[in-house]
Amino acid sequence: MQTARVRFLPDDITVEIQTGELVLDAALSAGVFLRAACGGTGGCGQCKVKISEGAVEPLKMDKLSAQDRAAGFVLACQAKVTGDITVQVPEAKVGRKVIPRDEADRMRLTATPMESPIIPQLNPPAVQVLLQATPPTPGDNISDYERILRTLKVNHEIEPVTADLEVVKGIPILVREHDWKLTVSFRAEEFPALGGRAYRLQRVCGGHEAGHPLAMAVDIGTTSLWGELVDLETGEVLARASRYNPQIAMGDDVISRIVFALKKDGLEKLQKEVVRGLNEIIDDVLRHAGRRRDNLLFMTAAGNTVMTHLFLGLYPKFLRESPYVPVAQNIEPVPAGDLGLAMPPGAFVRVFPGVASYVGGDIVSGVLANGMWDSDEMTLFIDIGTNGEIVAGNRDLLMTASCSAGPAFEGGGLEHGMRAAPGAVESILIDPETLEPMIKTIDMKPALGICGSGIINIISQMLKMRILAQNGKFNSHLDTDRVRDGRNGYEYVICRAPETGIGQDIVLSEVDLDNIIRAKGAMFSGYTCLLSKIGLSVDAVDRVIIAGAFGSFINLDHAITIGLLPDISPEKFHFIGNSSLKGARLATLDTGLFERAKAIARSLTNVELSEDPTYMDNFMAALFFPHTRAELFPSVRL
Amino acid sequence: MQTARVRFLPDDITVEIQTGELVLDAALSAGVFLRAACGGTGGCGQCKVKISEGAVEPLKMDKLSAQDRAAGFVLACQAKVTGDITVQVPEAKVGRKVIPRDEADRMRLTATPMESPIIPQLNPPAVQVLLQATPPTPGDNISDYERILRTLKVNHEIEPVTADLEVVKGIPILVREHDWKLTVSFRAEEFPALGGRAYRLQRVCGGHEAGHPLAMAVDIGTTSLWGELVDLETGEVLARASRYNPQIAMGDDVISRIVFALKKDGLEKLQKEVVRGLNEIIDDVLRHAGRRRDNLLFMTAAGNTVMTHLFLGLYPKFLRESPYVPVAQNIEPVPAGDLGLAMPPGAFVRVFPGVASYVGGDIVSGVLANGMWDSDEMTLFIDIGTNGEIVAGNRDLLMTASCSAGPAFEGGGLEHGMRAAPGAVESILIDPETLEPMIKTIDMKPALGICGSGIINIISQMLKMRILAQNGKFNSHLDTDRVRDGRNGYEYVICRAPETGIGQDIVLSEVDLDNIIRAKGAMFSGYTCLLSKIGLSVDAVDRVIIAGAFGSFINLDHAITIGLLPDISPEKFHFIGNSSLKGARLATLDTGLFERAKAIARSLTNVELSEDPTYMDNFMAALFFPHTRAELFPSVRL
Repeated sequence: MQTARVRFLPDDITVEIQTGELVLDAALSAGVFLRAACGGTGGCGQCKVKISEGAVEPLKMDKLSAQDRAAGFVLACQAKVTGDITVQVPEAKVGRKVIPRDEADRMRLTATPMESPIIPQLNPPAVQVLLQATPPTPGDNISDYERILRTLKVNHEIEPVTADLEVVKGIPILVREHDWKLTVSFRAEEFPALGGRAYRLQRVCGGHEAGHPLAMAVDIGTTSLWGELVDLETGEVLARASRYNPQIAMGDDVISRIVFALKKDGLEKLQKEVVRGLNEIIDDVLRHAGRRRDNLLFMTAAGNTVMTHLFLGLYPKFLRESPYVPVAQNIEPVPAGDLGLAMPPGAFVRVFPGVASYVGGDIVSGVLANGMWDSDEMTLFIDIGTNGEIVAGNRDLLMTASCSAGPAFEGGGLEHGMRAAPGAVESILIDPETLEPMIKTIDMKPALGICGSGIINIISQMLKMRILAQNGKFNSHLDTDRVRDGRNGYEYVICRAPETGIGQDIVLSEVDLDNIIRAKGAMFSGYTCLLSKIGLSVDAVDRVIIAGAFGSFINLDHAITIGLLPDISPEKFHFIGNSSLKGARLATLDTGLFERAKAIARSLTNVELSEDPTYMDNFMAALFFPHTRAELFPSVRL
Repeated sequence: MQTARVRFLPDDITVEIQTGELVLDAALSAGVFLRAACGGTGGCGQCKVKISEGAVEPLKMDKLSAQDRAAGFVLACQAKVTGDITVQVPEAKVGRKVIPRDEADRMRLTATPMESPIIPQLNPPAVQVLLQATPPTPGDNISDYERILRTLKVNHEIEPVTADLEVVKGIPILVREHDWKLTVSFRAEEFPALGGRAYRLQRVCGGHEAGHPLAMAVDIGTTSLWGELVDLETGEVLARASRYNPQIAMGDDVISRIVFALKKDGLEKLQKEVVRGLNEIIDDVLRHAGRRRDNLLFMTAAGNTVMTHLFLGLYPKFLRESPYVPVAQNIEPVPAGDLGLAMPPGAFVRVFPGVASYVGGDIVSGVLANGMWDSDEMTLFIDIGTNGEIVAGNRDLLMTASCSAGPAFEGGGLEHGMRAAPGAVESILIDPETLEPMIKTIDMKPALGICGSGIINIISQMLKMRILAQNGKFNSHLDTDRVRDGRNGYEYVICRAPETGIGQDIVLSEVDLDNIIRAKGAMFSGYTCLLSKIGLSVDAVDRVIIAGAFGSFINLDHAITIGLLPDISPEKFHFIGNSSLKGARLATLDTGLFERAKAIARSLTNVELSEDPTYMDNFMAALFFPHTRAELFPSVRL
């Protein structure tokens, strides 16, 4: 990817962005306010700018008059940056109230995007072999099944092999209809205690035209389900899809799900719901990639301990009762059909092992993906999900804790919160003069709600512009109808009904803010407590890796301003995105990495924050933007 | 067991029998004819004899007059021999036509009964452990399942352990309701290629009061099903039961079953029928032993290749088409529930591996039990079942063949044939003078039919008394109404309708004889052909081990007279009974012996007699009693 310099006039602010991004992205990054109420759909036609130097690649321009077009105007949300340009903002007056240069610079700071440093071998737990057996003769009339086993051993060095009776049953007809040419798939079963692996025949197809073997890597989040379709022959991710976890209807967070599970048929209902969601994801990725369901050999799933229990139908009662005991952490592969998954017979599901009741397989998967287990650097890993989990350490020591942050940063529990999906407001810039918002939605679809990165973004700006006080209360004496007394106390109107995709105003209320301040307070007190267990302050951390299903890269200035992230050097921050899904993909491709995940799970030391008396004090002190102890956030000036 | 000498007067013939046997048994063994038409039920009251020296233990004597009783008379069929006695036969005249002394001696020759020489270790493939885990604490809150695994490893040295999800699901409630005291059962899975074994958790019960673990050893014969209930803690056989194989309704022999299996739903029906029969046997043995079905951990089944295919639902078509290929020979344990067996969840079925389409797991099991694989003696092993199988060799070499003998020696295909079950005529003595039969039935129940040993017995005598010619045709010019022209040509009336349990005459016809001569001809030509493949004559054999579900020990004189067994020294013959069932029991108790059986199956070299041109000639020559070449049976004089 290449970068380009975008200079905005009359403010004379220049930012560097990646080519292919929009002029609107550049304006958001520069802190240059444009009127953009529709979220970047090209629908309101208000964000017109003039390209005075260089050229852009225009998209939809039907909202511009022919005259404007002839004069070099474009819609900022419909103009792709392809090289260095100068942009004239027509309505801006020199000398107007703008965001100061240094703040605008800070605002651009994003955590360095990182991919997993772990390189998988192409060594999946299920393999497919194209086999050609010799037909039987009177002198060589061993059974069909033993003939297949012999061919596998001699020609493919695969042994020992076992098989379910149902698979064996199909062989005699298949071999004779296809001239003893078969496509056979196995599951490799590791027996570390025996120092070897065994193979389990899971599928036999006639001929050699079955197509590439496939697998699903999924992340079962409390709020969202994510899935990737992986080609096991090329290692390629063919498609990706996500959904809300349909269990949300039975509770926002893990505790309310457990409560529901203990009702009559509750566990069964929850199990069916999450499987329904995963089946929709499977449908989506297969359709999108144009591949056949038949070729799905297995699924690797990562989820927190509660989600894993509910997915497998394990009784979750004792997860929430001291001493917080799961039913099981290391579950061997389960037949996919037993769980109700729409996968072919023989397909199986591997579930990431967890560490404790509130530190699950998603964190193990995340640690696998972020590579801290293989690094000398003292790393703080923060997964901002429904259940905020943190891991601190390096190759010598790994400690972990969870801190019930709640789903606010995934949009849960907020009136107009939503997960990072098309239509979610992910970037907002508030005009310091008019207090009007300029918004951009994911995929530039009409706004449906606001997601985590949008929430961090808007609160930070509202704090800076004193729309919001540090205790999370609105300033009701402002000359704007954007702040008003709404259903849930005071609220800020992010998007007005006509510009939305839902036909009603999208707002952020004081009740929402209360949720958010608790969530960020839980996270902050969680990782500071955990670090102090190792005897470290936040400053001693070499790097912070942030995971979470944010729509775009997390904006550090905003996240530090609200007190979610520690106030340390921006270079130390890395954003890995959905690390649970990334780890699941690694383990899908490389079964050695799944074994590594088991070792990571064993080595992670869990700290029960709820049993640490300092945690609650820390939490109470953090219920303030950014914190009651201002000295912890020296660079934040409000 | 002790023996006693029984002397019969006036013929002055003395025989040695075991105490506890009946005077009737002694008479049959001595060749002393008594009138006994009812089969030994005590119903006809004709077999009265006087005990002139010594004493007997009388049973039912109501058919005797008070006068007779006072005079020392007893019914021979109702008098148990407890010590040496002299028996006066009242109606016999000195000088009448009797069976010569030397022939009577020969008639008593039975193959030496043998038990398996193989001593099993008490090392079954499923084990039960009484486990006491420590309850979780905040400092030790690993999952319930991992806690169980840890306890097994530390306290019982059992690892690695895997489990089905369904078993894991039950753990959290059980451990808490039973103070962390559990009874857990596992299947041991052998991985010879990995040099170790793994354990699969199959059942978890709360507390320590579950009772001894149990298993079923079964022999799935074409005609009969046999089952034993084994206590895995003591090694004891608790009960034994047998039934006809209900598949008989769909065909007498393996070929007709295969034909039926290829019809619509045929395979499914056959599979269900045999399982129905096995379920009845399971019911029988559990009821008889007063044990709980819950404690059944597994079944070890031995059957011929066709029976094994039908039991497992494997498509049998190619078993009967050259080159005679089975679907599979080594099937790993199958969940019992998948087959429809009435065994608890987690219970599994191990099936003995076979060698070829017509040399199956029953023979492998038989060889395991008879110990020829571990012996220096050149052994000929003959299993006289529906499908006559033979094995020749010793520890250095084992060769095998099958010879489609058909079910005649199990009573199949004969008008009044039946398997060796209560009510089957198993012994017959024909009065040389009157040609009247003296019969004894199994368990002395009213006669229902005639079984294998009875058939051998009666034919031999009919040959000697020239009731029957050597070509299997009746002499129609005899002064007796026992031989008559019946529905199926000439026939001999074994038991008249009023004396039977079926209300009709029990006969043996020329059509039956045709079946029998083919069956014995197939057996004889089979083992002589097989021996010649090794370059041996029958005389070079050190011992002959005979297996088969005969009612009593096989009478050598009779079996040699009809040409079923070779005419060699009687000392060489051993009778092992149902060796397939015996082998199944050994493998049930000792999984090392099941692994041994797999090695035996691999080492057995199969000879396809049907592809040997000399076999058919041999067979044709054997369709004569005892054989067209009289020099092969020098001791038989007819």
